[in-house]
This record gives sequence, C-alpha cells and structure tokens, in this order.
Amino acid sequence: MLLSSASRALAAAKPRSPEPFAAAATAVLLRRQLAAGMAAAPASSASAAGNREAFRVAVTNTLERRLFYVPSFKIYGGVAGLYDYGPPGCAVKANVLAFWRQHFVLEEGMLEVDCPCVTPEVVLKASGHVDKFTDLMVKDEKTGTCYRADHLLKDFCKDKLEKDNTLSPEKTAEFNHVLAVLDDLSAEQLGAKIKEYGIVAPDTKNPLSDPYPFNLMFQTSIGPSGLSPGYMRPETAQGIFVNFKDLYYYNGNKLPFAAAQIGLLRVREFTLAEIEHFVDPEDKSHPKFRDVSDLEFLMFPREQQLTGKSAMKLNIGQAVSEGTVNNETLGYFIGRVYLFLTQLGIDKDRLRFRQHLPNEMAHYAADCWDAEIECSFGWIECVGIADRSAYDLRAHSDKSGVALEAHEKFAEPREVEKLVITPSKKELGLAFKGNQRMVLEALEAMSETEALNMKSALESKGEVEFKVCTLGKDVTIKKSMVSINMEKKKEHQRKFTPSVIEPSFGIGRIIYCLFEHCFYQRPGKAEDEQLNVFGFPPLVAPIKCTVFPLVKIEKFEVVAKKISKALTAAGISHIIDMTGNTIGKRYARTDEIGVPLAITVDNTTSVTVRDRDSKDQIRVEVDEVASVVKEVTDGQSTWADIMWRYPAHTASAAEEEEASET
Amino acid sequence: MLLSSASRALAAAKPRSPEPFAAAATAVLLRRQLAAGMAAAPASSASAAGNREAFRVAVTNTLERRLFYVPSFKIYGGVAGLYDYGPPGCAVKANVLAFWRQHFVLEEGMLEVDCPCVTPEVVLKASGHVDKFTDLMVKDEKTGTCYRADHLLKDFCKDKLEKDNTLSPEKTAEFNHVLAVLDDLSAEQLGAKIKEYGIVAPDTKNPLSDPYPFNLMFQTSIGPSGLSPGYMRPETAQGIFVNFKDLYYYNGNKLPFAAAQIGLLRVREFTLAEIEHFVDPEDKSHPKFRDVSDLEFLMFPREQQLTGKSAMKLNIGQAVSEGTVNNETLGYFIGRVYLFLTQLGIDKDRLRFRQHLPNEMAHYAADCWDAEIECSFGWIECVGIADRSAYDLRAHSDKSGVALEAHEKFAEPREVEKLVITPSKKELGLAFKGNQRMVLEALEAMSETEALNMKSALESKGEVEFKVCTLGKDVTIKKSMVSINMEKKKEHQRKFTPSVIEPSFGIGRIIYCLFEHCFYQRPGKAEDEQLNVFGFPPLVAPIKCTVFPLVKIEKFEVVAKKISKALTAAGISHIIDMTGNTIGKRYARTDEIGVPLAITVDNTTSVTVRDRDSKDQIRVEVDEVASVVKEVTDGQSTWADIMWRYPAHTASAAEEEEASET
Repeated sequence: MLLSSASRALAAAKPRSPEPFAAAATAVLLRRQLAAGMAAAPASSASAAGNREAFRVAVTNTLERRLFYVPSFKIYGGVAGLYDYGPPGCAVKANVLAFWRQHFVLEEGMLEVDCPCVTPEVVLKASGHVDKFTDLMVKDEKTGTCYRADHLLKDFCKDKLEKDNTLSPEKTAEFNHVLAVLDDLSAEQLGAKIKEYGIVAPDTKNPLSDPYPFNLMFQTSIGPSGLSPGYMRPETAQGIFVNFKDLYYYNGNKLPFAAAQIGLLRVREFTLAEIEHFVDPEDKSHPKFRDVSDLEFLMFPREQQLTGKSAMKLNIGQAVSEGTVNNETLGYFIGRVYLFLTQLGIDKDRLRFRQHLPNEMAHYAADCWDAEIECSFGWIECVGIADRSAYDLRAHSDKSGVALEAHEKFAEPREVEKLVITPSKKELGLAFKGNQRMVLEALEAMSETEALNMKSALESKGEVEFKVCTLGKDVTIKKSMVSINMEKKKEHQRKFTPSVIEPSFGIGRIIYCLFEHCFYQRPGKAEDEQLNVFGFPPLVAPIKCTVFPLVKIEKFEVVAKKISKALTAAGISHIIDMTGNTIGKRYARTDEIGVPLAITVDNTTSVTVRDRDSKDQIRVEVDEVASVVKEVTDGQSTWADIMWRYPAHTASAAEEEEASET
Repeated sequence: MLLSSASRALAAAKPRSPEPFAAAATAVLLRRQLAAGMAAAPASSASAAGNREAFRVAVTNTLERRLFYVPSFKIYGGVAGLYDYGPPGCAVKANVLAFWRQHFVLEEGMLEVDCPCVTPEVVLKASGHVDKFTDLMVKDEKTGTCYRADHLLKDFCKDKLEKDNTLSPEKTAEFNHVLAVLDDLSAEQLGAKIKEYGIVAPDTKNPLSDPYPFNLMFQTSIGPSGLSPGYMRPETAQGIFVNFKDLYYYNGNKLPFAAAQIGLLRVREFTLAEIEHFVDPEDKSHPKFRDVSDLEFLMFPREQQLTGKSAMKLNIGQAVSEGTVNNETLGYFIGRVYLFLTQLGIDKDRLRFRQHLPNEMAHYAADCWDAEIECSFGWIECVGIADRSAYDLRAHSDKSGVALEAHEKFAEPREVEKLVITPSKKELGLAFKGNQRMVLEALEAMSETEALNMKSALESKGEVEFKVCTLGKDVTIKKSMVSINMEKKKEHQRKFTPSVIEPSFGIGRIIYCLFEHCFYQRPGKAEDEQLNVFGFPPLVAPIKCTVFPLVKIEKFEVVAKKISKALTAAGISHIIDMTGNTIGKRYARTDEIGVPLAITVDNTTSVTVRDRDSKDQIRVEVDEVASVVKEVTDGQSTWADIMWRYPAHTASAAEEEEASET
C-alpha cells in the first residue's frame, strides 16, 4: 500500500512542480540515500543536474504543449498539485490500466473489486490510519500558513551544507546526521531543532508554532445529517480487506487467491492499483514461480545498501532460494512487476528493486521491496511489493467482531492438544442466578493465557477474582465452578488468518517515468532543429496509427476514409489528418505524441506504411492495411516481422517531401 | 449533465434501498407522470406491484449472492447508499465502460479528458452550482435529523390518497395538485404546507424546522492550509468546459468536436460518463446523421405527455425534420444512445426517449431528451441528452476573463456594420491626468447598448456621467472626448461562443437496468426448482467462457489447462472449474453469473461447447476452441453462425449428466 513512505511522499507533492506525478519522491529518496550511507551520487554535480533539468524541460514542454496533461482549472489560475489528463494522456493512462488488468487480473485470475473512496472512520481506525497517518506541521504564528516541519528542517540543513563555506567539520557532520535521522524525529525533537537553528517561516520570516500532528486524510461526513465521520481513503487496500470473507467464499473457500483494485486516493486523486494476494502463512510457495525464476534484473538488497555498495543484477530464482527475498510468492510478484514495467516501455537499466531497510518497514511486515525507476528527479519509488503478514485482517477482525479467517481441511483428522474450558452450569446458576449467562460466556471467552493463569490460581488458592466485562464488575470464581484442562482432541481442519502479499502501483508515477524513458530527440532538416519523439511501445501509444492523404484530392480522401472505417472496425484508435500540411510536418506532429505507425495514401490501391522510430516504409494493399496495423499494434508481430513480408517503399513523392520538409 | 433533475434524484437515493443504483428515480418519475397528467399506470395495481417486487427480490438476491455487488463496509454494518462491486460486477462495469469508449470516443473521434473530482469553489460558483445545487431540508427540532421537505410532503399526500377512504373530492384534487406542483414550490410554500397539514418528523413525531436550502455538494478544502474551499464535483462537465480553449486548439481550431469524460461524482460516487459536443450555434447539422436517421424507437414528445397520450414509435429522421427534436446533432446522439443501450442488452421495448417539459428544462436549454428504461422501479432516467446552448462556456468566460470562443474564417472578407468607439487621448489626458488610462479602457470596454446610449446622450446634452469601475466613481465625459460611430468594416472571420450538446450517462443505473433486463428463470429438474440466468450479451458478460473437465482425471485437466492458456493469450476472461461437481451443477452456477459459453473437456482431441441460453452444444477441436470462443464473444459471429459450422453434440456423458442433475 505504499503506506508510510510513499503515501507520505505523495502527500508532500511540491506545489506547482513542473510535472505532476513524481516530484515528491525525490526528497524521500535523497533522504534514503543518506540514511543508507550512500554518497550523493554523480547526478548531484552541477552539470549533470543541468542536463537532467534541460531534458526534463524538453519532455514536459512537449507533454503540456501536446495536451498529455495540463494544470487543472488553468483558466482560473490552476490549483497546485492537480492536473488534467488531456486526450493523449488519457489514452496512455487507459492503456496502462488495461495492460495492468490483462497482465495481473486476467492472467492471474485475480478477483477485481471496486469500492468507494469515502470510508467510514471505524474502518480507518482499525487500520491505524486515523491515529498514525499524520505529518508534523508547523504554523506561521501570524499568517497561519502551514509547513511540514521536517521539510523546513531539511531545507535548512541542505542549504547550510551546500552554501555555507565556513562550516566546521563538526557542524557539517551534525547537519548530515540530522538529515539522516529526519524520518525518526519526534514532534518534540523536531521542535527543539527548529528553535535551536532559529528557523522561521520561509515566506514571511515570522516565528513558527510547535510541531503538531496533521492527519493526511481528508475528512468528510457521510449522509445528509453530517453525523457520520468518514475520510477519503488513503489506500485502496482496506476495501479489499473488509471484503475478505465474501471474496474467500467467492473463491470456493480456497487459498491462495488475490483481489485487485484500481482507484483514486484522497482529494489529490492519485490513481493507485493494488493487489492483495492472500496466502497460507505456512506455505508461501507459488505454483507459477518457475515462470519467472530465470529473470535477471537490478536488485538492491538491504545488505548492499547498508555496506554502501550499488544495486546489482540478480537472478530472482537465486535471490529467493538464498533467502535474500523472503519467499516465493513475494519473488513471483517482483518478477511479474519487472515484466509489467519493461513491457510498458520502462528501460530495464533504469529500473531496480530496492529492499526496505529494517527501520523503513512497518513492524508487522515480513519483507518489502520497492520497484524504483530512475528519471530526471533521481530514483523514485513506483511500485511497493510488501509481505504485510496478517496485520490488516487481524485488525479488522478485532474491530468488527467478524472472523476473517481461512480453513485448511485435513485429509485425515489430526490429534492435537487443546485447552478445554468447561464451566459447571449448575454451580454458576447457584452462585450468580440471573447473571449466570454473562459469567459463563466470559469464562468461555478467556484466552489460553488467561485460562492457564486461572487454572493455577484455582489450584493454589481455591478461588480467584474474575472480571466480567458485560457485568462491569469482578466476581469470585471457585474451583467447583469451572474445569480447565489440556485435552487431546481430533481436529478436522486448521483455522488461520491468511498472510497478504501486496503489490501496490502508483500509476501516475509509472506514467511519468514512462514519458521520460520513451522521449528522445532527433535532428530535423533545419540546422540545430531537434524533433521530439515519444517512442511508446504500441501497447501504450495513445493513438496507434495515423492516416494521411498525401495531397488534398478526392480520390485519396475516399481511400483514407475507407481505411479509417476498417481501422475503427478493428478497434484501432487512429487519427485522419486531411490538412494540406506537408507529409514531413504531419509525421513530425504525430511523432510528438508517439504514434507508432503512419499510413500515407499516395495511391488508390496500395499505400505507404511508415514506422515511427526507424522511419522505414513499406507498401501494403489498401484492403490489407488495417489488419497489418492491428498485427503490429496488438503485439502479434513486430515491425521487423512485417518488413520481411512487404516490399520496402523507395523514394516516392511522400518520402521526397519528408526529406525536404522536416 | 443530468443536472437539475437527475442529480437531485441521485442525491435523494433512498438509504438502505435493496438495490444501489436506481431507487431514487422512481419518486421523480411518479411525480413526473402526475405532472404530465398521466393516469397512475397499471403497475400501481396491487398484484402487478407484487410481481415486480418478487422479480426484483429474485434479481437482487442473485446479484448479492454471486457478489455482483455487496453493501460497502458490510462487516462494520455497512453505509447506506454505498456499494462495492465484487468481481463479476466489476467486470460488467469495465465492459460497459469499454464499450462506451468504443462506441462514442473511438467511433466518433472524441477527445477524452480526465479531470480531478475536487473542484475549486470559483469554478462551481461560475457554473451556478454553489448557489443553486440545493435541496430544501427540514430538521427534527429535537434530534437534529434532516429530511427532504418535498419528500415528507409527497409521502403525506400519497398516503392520504392511498389510504384515506373518507377523502372529499376537493381534498383529493388538492393533494393531487400538490404532488403535481411539488417541484416548483418555494421554501416558504413548502413550509406553509407542512404547517397546514401538521406534518412531523416521521421517526420521532417531533415538530420540524422551517425548510432551508442545503447544498448537495460535499465541501472540502484544497491544500494543507485548509484555506481554499472546494467541492467534490457534482458533474464531470465543468472539467471539460474550463479546458475548452486547449481542446479547441488541440482539434486544430475546428468545430464541431466533442470531448468526453468518465468520472466519479461527489462523495456517494456515482460514475457518470459525459460527452460535450461543441457546435456552431448557426449550424447544428451532423455529417453522420444519415447513419441513424432510419432508426425507429419509442419516443415520448412533450406534446404527447401534455395531452395524456402514450409514448409512440417514431422515426428519428422524421422527428428531426418535423421539428419534434430540435436539431440534427441532438437527433444523432439520441440515435447513438439508442444503439448503445440496445447493444448492451437493454430491451428496446422497455426503453423510451422522453422529452423534457418546458418547466423541467433550464432556461438556457434549447431541447432535452431523457433515455428512460423501465425496470421494477418503473421508468427511470438513465441518460440525459441536452442542448445546453452556450450557457456554460459564457459563464466561465465571464468569471475567468478568458475568452472561450470559436472562430469561423470567411472564404472572402465580409463587409459588416460595426460600432467603433474612438476616445481622444489628448482630451482625456487634459481632463483626467493620471486616471486617463482607466477612463480610456472603460470607454473602449462599453457594450454596444451602453455606447449607443452614450452617443445619444452626448448628442442631446453634450456631456454625460460615466461610471469607471476601476476608479470606483463617476466621471463626466464630454462630446470632445470620444467619437462613437457605426462604421462599415471588412471582417475576415466570425467569433462566437459554441453551443454544446450534452449526452450524459448514469452508468450505475444503466448497469442495474441491464441486470434486470438480462435476468430470467427457467425450470430445473427438481419440481418447482427455478434456475437463475443472466442472459448477458457476450459484450458485457463478466466472464466469457468456462472450462470444465468432465471428470477429475489428469488427461482432461491437462487439456483444460492448455485451453485456458490459449484463452488467456486471446484475451478472453474465463474460469476453469476443476471441482468434482456434476456438469449440470457447474452449468447452473455459471448461468447465474451470465457466462455465455461453456467448454466441457470430455475428450483429449475435441471438446463440447455449450451455449448458455439455448443450451445447444457443438463439438470443436481442442486447438480451434479458443478462436471459436473469441469469434462469438468478440461479436464477429453469433452462436447461430457457429452452429452451422460444427457438428452438434448429441447425447453424451456430459449431456446425460446435465439432464439428470440440473
């Protein structure tokens, strides 16, 4: 659920950042790198940072100009942190989600659910979010403007380290230490440091309040009376956990199974796609593990981080068998996430799986790995894959009183030793009259420890005081009233709370990284001219194909419309550009939105098909062209496969024109 | 945007209604039928109502039992009005949305956008929602519980009419009149009626407060400071309107074009899918109108409603040419909506297009039709198709100061008479010194009417008082300071605010009606046994196909797994059921979730394929079966087409078993 770390990072998204999806994570990562004792990486040198910045500007300019996304409510001045996806961005997002459904939900037979974003307080009380999903904030004492206390302290220390040349080695070490432990500071410690360093409100230089916890969830009220408090959900996972019982039943009361959900979070509306894979805690093997066990990719185990080493290529099968990765199911999902991201178009050399350090993980987690992708902001976490053990199901079980358990039926009944509590109804009736039932139920509800304590007290003292909650008082239990014994029993099944392995995807961040990884520039005809290209794989390309009549004459337009109809029937998104612009200009415009294939109608029986990246061209019959395009964009064939089957298109009017006009 | 009527209806959704998607609309419709002078329809007779109720119970029981949907947060007692889609419901919803994208966005080349749900106050102030999107509520004066004032009054009148046999004809007429005008009553009028009839809080019998307006939007605050008010959006349309300028540019500055959005609304999270089709107000023809103009379906024009007649079959081409439907574009979308709904599986005989009565439409709307679907709740509105003229773009243009206009370039420049305001800078400078610029700008910004008034005043009196807002005072303008004349000018283009045609889809309601229209029961083997079937078209079926090894032996399981792999590769959602249940039981279970095709593995080279509705069976080779299933489920062939090509499967073990076990 990208819980403590990433959700916090998301919550902290820089206002007015030039890109909507990733900025926040940088800070966290830098902090992490420091915490892990890593050097500040080559990227921090001024020129590398400058190149990154220039690259990012080129990408984001193209993205905004071509309406992949725009600031929301722009005509009213925009709202920090909110972005609208325009048509091509919307299509990329839809394609990423569709592939996610295909790759995970369909291929793994997962149970998809769709729960509301608004969530009653009781659910988030049980999950721990009401109490713990907070940031420490400070207020400008005069204007009331709020700031994150840790951000102010971090900025102050970084500023000192970067700009103050007079810093003593002791001070340098102190500031570095503060940055390293920033995540672990309490409200008091943060407040003390802010006072000590004389940090004031950055905008007004006014004094600041003491740090206070601010819950990151957005509160709302459910129903017209406004009396039931609720929150916009901080993760989609809870909706799955509270439905565990029904989903388990739906799955024929069998483990393992996985449920999945795509949904919006909180008010800033990050799209999260989460999977909760429920397994028997005593058997975390995965039947399909061998499908991924030969994969090799960059991994960054805890050990490497703590000893200041780099990420390295590991074989996932080996990582599991050597115990680097806790179990097969976790390893299986790491492998599947690797395949998902690289098939989308993420560069495998800028993708790594980083294991959480012990202090990053929640106390209940067994192991946790983040898929981190390198972009111009540095390495940012895009997918979290955690073994959360049985924490959530237990919490909801306790709070709701509904057992969220699985059963394993034994082939043969097994003999087990079990504590048996047998109250004597007769004795209880004589002693407690009308209260008899409450005392009886309280006795039967004792935990094993409580019962064993009572047994030994009764044996030594003959009687014991016993608190009955439903009566609101203590009663005296005598030895005659209850027998407590370990007995041998035959059991036909085992009851247990399943563990959950949770891959959790920050869709917006993945999309932003994809934009950067797919973007490149190539020289145009004019001197110094750079043409922008998004080299999206067909799978994610917002539009699969364009149709261009070479010149504005009716017979070509008729053919173009015919092809367009065939493409629509084949379900291929395309645009038809009848403008009189030169073919070169039209190619350049569609390269900028990453259209993989272009059909130029330069003849009434056959047409030219051009590949975006190689700029190779082939000739295909009009009647055949839709199915050829479908073959490539559906991923059944590659462009290279197709090239073999059709004649190359050599210097024609269209190509001449491209050569002379681009 | 289903604005005044449907959104209100949605907002009023009955708590704890047995079905999540439609209940609210019934009340509205009944009111409408009365308003339109219609008799209370045969459905109101006790036995018909009983049948409807029994049918609904059968449908909703199956839906909840098979996890199409469940009450959200059930283990905590649920939350009124919130439902989770379980796996099959989730799949149906995804299929409906995918078909919506194919049918509208892709086939019509619409621009899809994706905007946040949280919306700053200024946007909803401009759109009118902050001031007008309200319900009149009354409060229990002792407990504070809130009720909709019109609901209480309506329930009171209906109760009297149904149960009070002593009612005089005058009183009967009065209560009927109140029901008919309920929508138009002011807060004062509602309050007076509640007092007059002595209506009290239904739960406690306590007295009620006066009616007060309650805004139906959910307020929130944007950003950590909590200082910028915002709302969860009441419709997705505004996100499109505020992006008009960019979208128009994206479309090559050409009209018409349409933008589309699928998104969640408010806190109760109805999924709305909206299209905003922008057109030149002087030309609302549609180039593809002839594609739908021959369609005939049930329409219910205003005239028929007002004269107490019924809906009737009309040809949409004729309805447009006779002026019943305001224009071609509106007619085109009515036709497209008809095709969309019927292809999904909505029964065409229980679908009608009802025109809004004059008092139902917003003052700016040119014409408006609702697609209404009949289900056990009566006729409910599921799609609104409105010509909203230029209202929204003008409102945002005024409020934001950003021109939201389109341009038509003339082939030849046209000569037009135009008012030209020419201030004399010299005279203004002498008279107003430092304020000169403000006065000049105010003069130039005058509307045509203001300028003509000033012209005549200057001509008659020589001077005139003139309010300059930026100075906050009046100044005296003399004749020498400005010349105002009608002049002939050549214009190269026309600027105008586009009109918008808006089809707006309540996805949850459509899905609920689809469930009812697809549901049927057929006799089982046991006496009185009724088997439930959802006869979904393959397009919307949550799972397209099942794979059943006839008996639990390894060679059949191997074949089943092989077929499963081929189905996955073909992108066909399916389940493989290896349980030892009889084939008959397995068929019955999957009929209940509407799986169209079942593959029974009863041989290692060929298998049986069974059609859900006819129960016909054919034999197909193992290697071919995935592509045969794909043909049918993709809609390239029907079952009838396939039946011709493959041998019928006659009495085999599988069929015998079905016959004996179902």
